[in-house]
Amino acid sequence: MIATPTYPSPLHQLKRLSGVWGIDLWAKRDDLIPQYIGGNKVRKTFAILQSYILNFGLPKVIITNGGAESNHARVVALMGAQLGCQVHLVLHGQESETSTVGNSFFYRSAGAITHYVTSQEIGPTIERLEQGCVEKGQSVCVIPGGGHAAEGVEAYAEAVAELPVAPDYIVHASGTGGTQAGLLAGVEQQGWNTAVVGISVARMKQRGIEEVVKLLPAGISEERVDFRDEYRFGGYEQYGPELMAFVQSVIRAEGIPLDLTYTGKAMFGLAQLVEAGEIAPGSHVVFWHTGGLLNLQSSVYKEI
Amino acid sequence: MIATPTYPSPLHQLKRLSGVWGIDLWAKRDDLIPQYIGGNKVRKTFAILQSYILNFGLPKVIITNGGAESNHARVVALMGAQLGCQVHLVLHGQESETSTVGNSFFYRSAGAITHYVTSQEIGPTIERLEQGCVEKGQSVCVIPGGGHAAEGVEAYAEAVAELPVAPDYIVHASGTGGTQAGLLAGVEQQGWNTAVVGISVARMKQRGIEEVVKLLPAGISEERVDFRDEYRFGGYEQYGPELMAFVQSVIRAEGIPLDLTYTGKAMFGLAQLVEAGEIAPGSHVVFWHTGGLLNLQSSVYKEI
Repeated sequence: MIATPTYPSPLHQLKRLSGVWGIDLWAKRDDLIPQYIGGNKVRKTFAILQSYILNFGLPKVIITNGGAESNHARVVALMGAQLGCQVHLVLHGQESETSTVGNSFFYRSAGAITHYVTSQEIGPTIERLEQGCVEKGQSVCVIPGGGHAAEGVEAYAEAVAELPVAPDYIVHASGTGGTQAGLLAGVEQQGWNTAVVGISVARMKQRGIEEVVKLLPAGISEERVDFRDEYRFGGYEQYGPELMAFVQSVIRAEGIPLDLTYTGKAMFGLAQLVEAGEIAPGSHVVFWHTGGLLNLQSSVYKEI
Repeated sequence: MIATPTYPSPLHQLKRLSGVWGIDLWAKRDDLIPQYIGGNKVRKTFAILQSYILNFGLPKVIITNGGAESNHARVVALMGAQLGCQVHLVLHGQESETSTVGNSFFYRSAGAITHYVTSQEIGPTIERLEQGCVEKGQSVCVIPGGGHAAEGVEAYAEAVAELPVAPDYIVHASGTGGTQAGLLAGVEQQGWNTAVVGISVARMKQRGIEEVVKLLPAGISEERVDFRDEYRFGGYEQYGPELMAFVQSVIRAEGIPLDLTYTGKAMFGLAQLVEAGEIAPGSHVVFWHTGGLLNLQSSVYKEI
């Protein structure tokens, strides 16, 4: 079986930002989950693979997709290697240089087979690979990109129980929606009034909410999906000097890493909500750090 | 004051390597200390600065030295920023490209002033900077390169107490000697028979032992300093395909990061000692992970 990730992930106060912003701010460090180089994809992919194995046994082949520097692809590759599976990664975007930098080093180290394609070719490529397995009689587990599945949602619902008390807010980077749906489900399971605020790293509001709602367990009102698209900096993997300056100010204040694709935008959104008074002074806020140091390290920003 | 690092660092079993090598292997993950981007330099520098402040008050200026991609310099820069100090880093080696990669991104983010010099110029440059502070009446704290000081040793002695039981062996990457002296002191304080094995990442045996012995608290026999120089791969920051293949095999087996400068060599040494039978089957071994992911990320290896 796969090495079980070590939980709970660390939770620690951010005292300087708390002081400056006038709130009680804590960081939930899923980026520091010890196995698989951490991040929210560890919780999701582990749950998805466990469920698959329980239902169908060990797959011969695992297929998933993501961007060229996908955190999700890295986790699938590392877990797949432990299971002795052949892992196919269908990646869109530029094939990155062969180096020791970023997620690509880890999925290459894990021995995954990579297929670099255009966005349009993702679906057909997965289908072709899956069909090939079926023809050879190989069992195959296709994991949705980003670990966007019910098991991943449940994994995040369980993660909420790692918090010792109910915060007023949980703020996090929201991408494909699974983390946000899971955090909302977890808050509901705990019987808390905690508001879960997803800061979009890519999608516009309407689409973002739709995707979270699709994954939301029954009984949770759509109105509780708080998805903010004002801090996208132009969209996925886009950013500018203002975000860079903000990320560096947090590094200076707290000595913790943020990246420019996910957590930097989420923390920026949090700061804006505090400044606007939407998050009231004195509020107890958990910033859920979903990972991304490898994204920062492989980022192409050159003008600091 | 500086944000206190969150301890204990994680400790988890490495089940696959345990199985393959026939030992009971655990990883002590100082690389995952949540603040200051982790690693053994966090424990050392925090202790050194605490001691300085207790004795002399808050310094106006902090000066230290290291390599161009120094983990130690990164930690000093981040802690110094929190204290509101001006931080001078005297760095030998090539000034790295301005990018988001490696330690340099973090010490640039922290606002440290960098001075790139040759090895010969390190001492004179520190002296000149220190003299300048004295002339201006500024209090100045000069931290030895690598945090190579008694307070750093004491910090590692205390870290040993985070282990729940006495292992047969602690194996770690040994550089300037402070971590090894501290681990030995900690084992002694616990009254354990644990053997501390330092795998050299740079120095030859005689020099390495001398430096550890200099830092060893009174009452600990020099004979307990077990410093191995057979797994240096040519010296500091040197490596080849064999080490890269080994590091990748550990990434595949356990999904944990090793770097090519420090932890990769230490784990390689451990594997060799197990293979040679020097570490007996069934031994309880703690691999003390001292950090280095940023070294991996900024490494220049191109042929995987």
